[in-house]
Amino acid sequence: MGVHDAMYVLGGKWKIYIITGLLFGPMRYSELLKNITGISGKSLSRELREMELNLLIRRTVTGTSPVTVIYELTEYGESAKSIIGVLSEWGEEHRELIVRTK
Amino acid sequence: MGVHDAMYVLGGKWKIYIITGLLFGPMRYSELLKNITGISGKSLSRELREMELNLLIRRTVTGTSPVTVIYELTEYGESAKSIIGVLSEWGEEHRELIVRTK
Repeated sequence: MGVHDAMYVLGGKWKIYIITGLLFGPMRYSELLKNITGISGKSLSRELREMELNLLIRRTVTGTSPVTVIYELTEYGESAKSIIGVLSEWGEEHRELIVRTK
Repeated sequence: MGVHDAMYVLGGKWKIYIITGLLFGPMRYSELLKNITGISGKSLSRELREMELNLLIRRTVTGTSPVTVIYELTEYGESAKSIIGVLSEWGEEHRELIVRTK
């Protein structure tokens, strides 16, 4: 049950990468786009909108001119750090086998 | 880096569910199809083929008549149990919030 709930909010191709990026700190849209290899602007906008609705991230529009939009993890989003950590450990532990089967 | 490698073999919509299912033990194709809500036969065949190529699962054809095809996790596939465990914990811990934002 827990796996289904987690996958409901974290599933799909890009959310894990967006959380991994934002764990380094708040980022502008353009920084996220640059940081996540292979993601299109359209996909990034859709994933960010979903993550905002699911309360994983917060979107702040600053009063600069032009306006700047900053994305950051909420406390709830930050809690996914445990999943990112285990994924990273597992990926590194099996890197040799993963690369061999690519 | 580790996250990218892990996502390379575990990413996509269904692989986490297939591993979760096979953690309970070897299964026939028809059992997997029944156990994973919403997956189509086409998607299941494709995901199983990829997972076999990535050495996460083993496919055994038994000499029964008609032939039976059994899928089971390799030791490497079984090691993803740590990720499933953390996903499950996180999902249960945040179930209330996840359900509220569905």
